[in-house]
Amino acid sequence: MVVEVRVKLKEQVLDPQGEAIRRVLAGLGYAEIEQVRVGKLMLLEVAGKDATAVRSRVEEACREVLANPVIEEFEVRLP
Amino acid sequence: MVVEVRVKLKEQVLDPQGEAIRRVLAGLGYAEIEQVRVGKLMLLEVAGKDATAVRSRVEEACREVLANPVIEEFEVRLP
Repeated sequence: MVVEVRVKLKEQVLDPQGEAIRRVLAGLGYAEIEQVRVGKLMLLEVAGKDATAVRSRVEEACREVLANPVIEEFEVRLP
Repeated sequence: MVVEVRVKLKEQVLDPQGEAIRRVLAGLGYAEIEQVRVGKLMLLEVAGKDATAVRSRVEEACREVLANPVIEEFEVRLP
């Protein structure tokens, strides 16, 4: 099954990449785009039929590898 | 409103970053994660109340700045 992992910077963490994009957009006339935050969207093809087990393993992988718990938070979405 | 922009590599485009992550996961015992594709998840705070107009402007920004149409595809999701 395809599992979606969303990794975002925690709210209190500055996002210089997002701010740079916002500034470029403002310069191009998109002043209504007032804030940009950039995260990662990972799509995992995972073998397994038991959604609970798959979710648990992917969350483990997030904690171990896919997200940095100091500055990021993750969310796992199953189909 | 907060608009979600999802930018993914087109299916036929190789994703070396995703493949590197897959290999690391396999080395750690996550052999059931058979493929990883990495995209961007951008959260935009956009001024405006007309959902149709906001969507149209954000799609324009995607075409102009946020996605590379040669290798990427984007999707705009409104609340």
